[in-house]
Amino acid sequence: MTAEIVSVGTELLLGQIVDTHAPKMAQILADCGIGCTRRQTVGDNLERLTESIKLALSRADVVITIGGLGPTQDDITREGIAAALGVDLVSDPAYEEHLRRLFAKRKFAWVDSNLRQALRPAEAQFIPNDVGTAPGLICRQGAKSVIALPGPRSEFNPMAEGPVRDYLEKSHGGRVIHSRILRVCGLGESYVEEQIRHLMQGDNPSVAPYAHPAEVHLRLTARATTRAEADRIIDPMEGQIRGVLGNAIYGVDDKSLEEAVIDMLSDQNKTVAVAESITGGGLGQRLTNVPGSGDAFRGGVITYDLDAKQMLLGVEAATLKQFGPVSEETAREMAANISERLKTDYGVSITGNAGPTADVDGKPVGLVYIGIAGPAGVEVKEQHMRGGRADIRYRCTQLALVHLREALLA
Amino acid sequence: MTAEIVSVGTELLLGQIVDTHAPKMAQILADCGIGCTRRQTVGDNLERLTESIKLALSRADVVITIGGLGPTQDDITREGIAAALGVDLVSDPAYEEHLRRLFAKRKFAWVDSNLRQALRPAEAQFIPNDVGTAPGLICRQGAKSVIALPGPRSEFNPMAEGPVRDYLEKSHGGRVIHSRILRVCGLGESYVEEQIRHLMQGDNPSVAPYAHPAEVHLRLTARATTRAEADRIIDPMEGQIRGVLGNAIYGVDDKSLEEAVIDMLSDQNKTVAVAESITGGGLGQRLTNVPGSGDAFRGGVITYDLDAKQMLLGVEAATLKQFGPVSEETAREMAANISERLKTDYGVSITGNAGPTADVDGKPVGLVYIGIAGPAGVEVKEQHMRGGRADIRYRCTQLALVHLREALLA
Repeated sequence: MTAEIVSVGTELLLGQIVDTHAPKMAQILADCGIGCTRRQTVGDNLERLTESIKLALSRADVVITIGGLGPTQDDITREGIAAALGVDLVSDPAYEEHLRRLFAKRKFAWVDSNLRQALRPAEAQFIPNDVGTAPGLICRQGAKSVIALPGPRSEFNPMAEGPVRDYLEKSHGGRVIHSRILRVCGLGESYVEEQIRHLMQGDNPSVAPYAHPAEVHLRLTARATTRAEADRIIDPMEGQIRGVLGNAIYGVDDKSLEEAVIDMLSDQNKTVAVAESITGGGLGQRLTNVPGSGDAFRGGVITYDLDAKQMLLGVEAATLKQFGPVSEETAREMAANISERLKTDYGVSITGNAGPTADVDGKPVGLVYIGIAGPAGVEVKEQHMRGGRADIRYRCTQLALVHLREALLA
Repeated sequence: MTAEIVSVGTELLLGQIVDTHAPKMAQILADCGIGCTRRQTVGDNLERLTESIKLALSRADVVITIGGLGPTQDDITREGIAAALGVDLVSDPAYEEHLRRLFAKRKFAWVDSNLRQALRPAEAQFIPNDVGTAPGLICRQGAKSVIALPGPRSEFNPMAEGPVRDYLEKSHGGRVIHSRILRVCGLGESYVEEQIRHLMQGDNPSVAPYAHPAEVHLRLTARATTRAEADRIIDPMEGQIRGVLGNAIYGVDDKSLEEAVIDMLSDQNKTVAVAESITGGGLGQRLTNVPGSGDAFRGGVITYDLDAKQMLLGVEAATLKQFGPVSEETAREMAANISERLKTDYGVSITGNAGPTADVDGKPVGLVYIGIAGPAGVEVKEQHMRGGRADIRYRCTQLALVHLREALLA
């Protein structure tokens, strides 16, 4: 069984809003084991909408439209579905009555355009809308069906998660598509793929790599009749990949790198503090994203200004003068001093130049030093990064976490 | 001139990621006055991708693909475009050489799959990628063209905003749809809408409010033959709205709240430092997002741990004991002390409980104190926030910026 999603709305084609409903619907389809092989996005134009629904019906069993069910003139999804199915649009007297009662009860001013919401393609069923006034639609024709959902989030979500999920589960019955993500850090995408290429040939589970800044995600996807069976298909593949990549895999599914690091610190009963220059607090912000991070993360300093490195952290004026704020020597003192001042097991420092121009003392954009102070002394790594300011700063926090993790693994 | 966007990636069809690139590309098309009448989304499947590109080419002048240009086996956009255009895929020796030099320079391990990135449909031009290794493509065929952009955000954004925007502007030239955003802080959405409702009736320009955490954006959209003409249509409406909302409007278009605050500090030749507990560095991170923020922002401390508030900031043990870390008194000392230690004009403190459970001394989730130390003394505001941990922490940084801005306006 296959499905196709048709998102409707000119605001989507103008890029004025991001379509988060289609991914949500896609997740529900995947949960139900229904393959979604395509999505379309069309504007509030009857001719193009009709054509899109027809095209979708020609290649999928279930077509799901999102949006365009309101009372206004540019809400034309009802018309588009009727035209694509070649049936009439009829008014439903019971729903018309329901709408009039609803407006009276809520003391809203009645306007006749509301009657548009009582229209449905002949033979179609309404899906009740407990939040708004526009009902959803289920239109069957032979073995195919078109399901129409409203666009407002507060109406879309309960309808998609409730009656539509139920309908899909019932009409499909029994196959799920389930994925597990293995999250890898410290290795490049092409290197990871080279290492596991021999494991990427299969189809069930399939293995696909996705590059993210300073990490790689491997998605293992299985088709099965139940979620538990899908897990049993994925398990041995995860084992094989772990055999190759070892502890470069830091987490599974939604686990973030900061969460993995906080967990390791907590497990080892260790503490950490940060001294941030280029990232201005971004590393501390990420570590404290993790609920309960307070046992492992004590705090730190943001020494964005040159003087702040002396005033808050006691970096030697001679070091700053001789080597500059962006230097191995400064990173070394920053990491050692913050660990000492907050009496933590580890101290992490980041200093560098995120641009847009070269530093006061000529250090180029993208030059970064990351220091880790720990039981084994202080180690500083030099990095040369490319990209915009935000990219460089995010990558700094990634690599700081990767290096701290390496120290915790050692 | 019309365009169609084809987003490529199985992860999009599984709902694992939200497509934010297509809206960005759609905005660029709208800016250039190029009508985007449809979007498609397909997975990493060569047959379906080829068919989608062919279909798009049959109904649009420019087809823009996003994603699938990396080095791995499931990156098949190059193949799909070549197949849709009916041309061969050829290897570009100059780019191959460039890739090998790049890997040698960055000391990355070379793997032959990288050579896939030197492939291009015959006659296609590469678009240089200054961040990653996969170039973009411009493939012309008669009056039509296919433009291919890479999926990673740090590579997509500069390529879309730079060479692709330039190419589209040059190849088009006609009617534009142009929007301007007025960014409002310190007022709720319904209050803002109530104030400007009489200005929201028009069509050119149209005015639409969008709610964001602790701020409201008003989008003014005009249709015209040139960008300059659209600006002339928007200008008087902006004037009217400013007449109503005054300096609650902190910025225009992409200007962020942190940028507005840094600008005000710079204009007034003032400096600021932060003392962050609940936000763990998030406020410093935001202030240092702004290039050139170093003249106004000196640094600060992250006092996540109770002891850190004493060790790094000299908050009195008696204060912490009597009132607790989440209290007006602690916020007051934090703001005053950081301003004193870093010799800044302003000091900002944030202490609170982001959850998931009540604080050690029973302070409820969502209770937050924000302190502003400045020439007028120290003012602390109490907030009761709702929402998840991330929402509360972000809203804390928003309100800290709003309050600092109020102090700078006074």
